[in-house]
Amino acid sequence: MNFTQKLKQAISSTNSTLCVGLDPDPVRIPKPLKEEFPSIEKLIPEFCRRVIESTKIHACAYKPNSAFFEAYGSLGWRMMEEVADMIPSNRLFIADAKRGDIGNTALKYKETFFDRLNADALTLNPLMGLDTLLPFLDDESKGLFVLTMTSNRGSADFLQRRFEGRMSLGSYIAEELSKLNETCASHLGMVIGATQSAAVEPVLAAHPNSHLLIPGIGQQGGSVDELEISVQSHQGIPIINSSRAILYAGGDDEDWTEQVTVEAINMKDSFKNITSRYV
Amino acid sequence: MNFTQKLKQAISSTNSTLCVGLDPDPVRIPKPLKEEFPSIEKLIPEFCRRVIESTKIHACAYKPNSAFFEAYGSLGWRMMEEVADMIPSNRLFIADAKRGDIGNTALKYKETFFDRLNADALTLNPLMGLDTLLPFLDDESKGLFVLTMTSNRGSADFLQRRFEGRMSLGSYIAEELSKLNETCASHLGMVIGATQSAAVEPVLAAHPNSHLLIPGIGQQGGSVDELEISVQSHQGIPIINSSRAILYAGGDDEDWTEQVTVEAINMKDSFKNITSRYV
Repeated sequence: MNFTQKLKQAISSTNSTLCVGLDPDPVRIPKPLKEEFPSIEKLIPEFCRRVIESTKIHACAYKPNSAFFEAYGSLGWRMMEEVADMIPSNRLFIADAKRGDIGNTALKYKETFFDRLNADALTLNPLMGLDTLLPFLDDESKGLFVLTMTSNRGSADFLQRRFEGRMSLGSYIAEELSKLNETCASHLGMVIGATQSAAVEPVLAAHPNSHLLIPGIGQQGGSVDELEISVQSHQGIPIINSSRAILYAGGDDEDWTEQVTVEAINMKDSFKNITSRYV
Repeated sequence: MNFTQKLKQAISSTNSTLCVGLDPDPVRIPKPLKEEFPSIEKLIPEFCRRVIESTKIHACAYKPNSAFFEAYGSLGWRMMEEVADMIPSNRLFIADAKRGDIGNTALKYKETFFDRLNADALTLNPLMGLDTLLPFLDDESKGLFVLTMTSNRGSADFLQRRFEGRMSLGSYIAEELSKLNETCASHLGMVIGATQSAAVEPVLAAHPNSHLLIPGIGQQGGSVDELEISVQSHQGIPIINSSRAILYAGGDDEDWTEQVTVEAINMKDSFKNITSRYV
């Protein structure tokens, strides 16, 4: 099955384009769970397990953020391996690692995330050039999401500025990805911030077939209405991520998993008009 | 001790600006060592240990490349932790991870590389914006090396192109770093490819106090003569990296460690005119 088929299947079977970002931060993990699992080593995987259990009917994808695991070194990587195994096989596992390096190093990252962790997709940083992406492009079962127009304030520093006569460095990157995508087996998608709708349109126009990973919904403040307008004529499929707004919806309440479920449903419903185009 | 003091001390005590890049690739690790240590888990740390032992008189810094460890998952991270502990305390430990992400994720990476692995410096990717660098800037004992003008072919795709009226995106990034460096405690240095001398000069001019991490000497084909001209009026200190040319200098010979030493000496001597400015 190629990546697009996997993605369509995951969306059909959940009626959702929601991706749940797994950024497990012990400071914010609900107190009742911390009391039950005092060691980080047990706490983080158990938190992720309960979040996955509580949301899996409503989410087509999960996106573990490598930084939140790496912060615990080799122990953290073991937790990430455990969490990788928890993601249901008919949901997408998107490894959010934002790697980007030259050929022989890129090959090692490919080994890490695709061969070892068995991710379905990986986020990549293209700054060093297109040659850093090439090692990832030969496997049709995998998706890549390349940082193109992110949702943080700092995207104004470089990505939103004009470049080579284009509206932005982001839209120029998108054009280059579009050309590369025609020749590659993997699907070369983009990370597009939901909070930057004016900036986003030329980027989508430059790579119209690209599947999209969209952070910035929820705590980063992205507007669903703006997003709906942006993607309405786009041919690729948007995957809409929310991390903290879902993970920590229950505060320190005993029934926090129920509130996680409710928030996932609300989130999914908030962009059901977008999702309806793909089911 | 602040980062600049640590760097100067490491250079004085070794009479060297050589950094040895630790990219342990089992395919290229000398056969005699592979026969002695058939398990990857033992082989990689032992290879690094012998390389460090064979070069430590001649190198001011070591730069483990995280990809070559991550490729083995949690086991690989344990190996990286082991190798981190082998680097002599009066040499710099530069973690080559090229991370770059938004604030709360950046804080986790800081925890990973500075608090947990106890690196002296970290490589960072600035594409997402300057806000991704801010969480790293408050510790004067640490150095950051931000990707600015790399040595791979792909640097022509984005970094070498004109940006905002400047000679290149790279030189624009350098200007922004220079401004930020004035207000921060950490030293905000740059990764500058040795193979791009024409492209490099405006970048150095834009951030004249920046310490430099210079890959691209050795197997990436950088010219020392060109480098010497580029850095002669620069006020920051260059750290010149070589990875594969040193690591695999001995092929599969029994006496491979001797050849590693010889290559480190040759390398160090090849840019002794540069080093002499800093001892």
